[in-house]
Amino acid sequence: MCYYAGMNVGIYGLGRFGSFWGTELSRFVTVKGFNRSPLISVPKGVELVSEEELLQCDTIVLCVAISALESVLTSISSRVQPETLVMDTCSVKVYPARIMQTVLPKSINIIATHPMFGPDSGKAGIAGLPLVFSPIRATIKQELVWKDLFHAMQLQVIEMDCDQHDREAAYSQGVTHFVGRVLDELQLQPTQLATVGYQRLLSIVEQTCNDPLQLFYDLQRYNPYAHAMQQRLKEALDAVLGVLTDHDSVPRERV
Amino acid sequence: MCYYAGMNVGIYGLGRFGSFWGTELSRFVTVKGFNRSPLISVPKGVELVSEEELLQCDTIVLCVAISALESVLTSISSRVQPETLVMDTCSVKVYPARIMQTVLPKSINIIATHPMFGPDSGKAGIAGLPLVFSPIRATIKQELVWKDLFHAMQLQVIEMDCDQHDREAAYSQGVTHFVGRVLDELQLQPTQLATVGYQRLLSIVEQTCNDPLQLFYDLQRYNPYAHAMQQRLKEALDAVLGVLTDHDSVPRERV
Repeated sequence: MCYYAGMNVGIYGLGRFGSFWGTELSRFVTVKGFNRSPLISVPKGVELVSEEELLQCDTIVLCVAISALESVLTSISSRVQPETLVMDTCSVKVYPARIMQTVLPKSINIIATHPMFGPDSGKAGIAGLPLVFSPIRATIKQELVWKDLFHAMQLQVIEMDCDQHDREAAYSQGVTHFVGRVLDELQLQPTQLATVGYQRLLSIVEQTCNDPLQLFYDLQRYNPYAHAMQQRLKEALDAVLGVLTDHDSVPRERV
Repeated sequence: MCYYAGMNVGIYGLGRFGSFWGTELSRFVTVKGFNRSPLISVPKGVELVSEEELLQCDTIVLCVAISALESVLTSISSRVQPETLVMDTCSVKVYPARIMQTVLPKSINIIATHPMFGPDSGKAGIAGLPLVFSPIRATIKQELVWKDLFHAMQLQVIEMDCDQHDREAAYSQGVTHFVGRVLDELQLQPTQLATVGYQRLLSIVEQTCNDPLQLFYDLQRYNPYAHAMQQRLKEALDAVLGVLTDHDSVPRERV
């Protein structure tokens, strides 16, 4: 039995990720979309609707910047129908879960999610990629429907609480984006001398810097574990530089 | 016509790279090998010989640590036959080229090379991987024979002077190894939440830290452009941290 048949989903925010996610979901359910500013093109499979029509959907999937979440929720909370499910897709989880619980009325249900991929990493298909699934308050049926849909999309559904997500994500996705942005400052170039490792490094820079700069800021600022990760990375760099200076008495070659 | 037929090659130093390189070369030419300390196992395709016998080979391929190069050359220079070709395989080029020119008698020829791969990156085969080729003093025939052999091995032969190699390698191979060692300090762990980018980052750490620590030190200390690269990386990290601190007035989430 297919639990999600007939469900309609409203994507709030059709930026880089929202457009991608709307198109992926549209292979299985009816997808409507709303964007506050005019769009250059409507994503494939998504019906562009007004904000009022979007708020009538069974599930509203928020695809807005983490830093815009509170103002969007405040603006829509009185207009969302009771028993609607609101689902975020932010790359951090503790902060959005708290804001959704605080701003939305108790009659509205909430599932926090983090699809851990995007238009670049999911370019060749999203089968097997991880999606973190963290029900905050939802009916058993709503949980079942969405897990059923995500499984139909062949995603690897990971049930995890929001704090554990942020702790692990700071030292995986967070560190990757941080290293990508740091390396981007060096403006590394392709070279005939590219080793396999260097090609991987360039692909990390390209992929992380393809995402909006706002996502980078938000990932680093709204994850409560990111600050400690950044400091540990800085200390690690200083430690390696220190070892190179102290290593032995051979003078360094300089130009 | 196969120029390299009948040639014999002596690998001086059967460590991690020398063993790998000896086995690869042995698919095409006779390979003898010598190691100063006893070996746990003799690499496939390589005949273990005494130092004296190794020095009789047509070409002596040095596979010793960059920091050991000068003492090895000093110890063998009076015993190498005139017209022998000596070839290094160091991951930096300006320093070894200068030492080889200084220590070896004029009657001995020299080609500097850098096979830009190793047992990890070449695990699935070395076809298409780059090898930097920089003749210092060699007969036309010696150059032809070795280019012919490297082409037969399906390597991408890049003729480049030693200074250009070091400049480009500092910002490709050098930066990759540096980032790998810095990240290793964080003891990053596999996680269910691994994004595609994070998996690539982990593979860089694993591959660079599989190489001997001495190679890392030597890459960073004997490349005349490495120090500036390290300082630029440190400045880039500080710049990104600074932007995160200044970005906006939203207080950072902290635990």
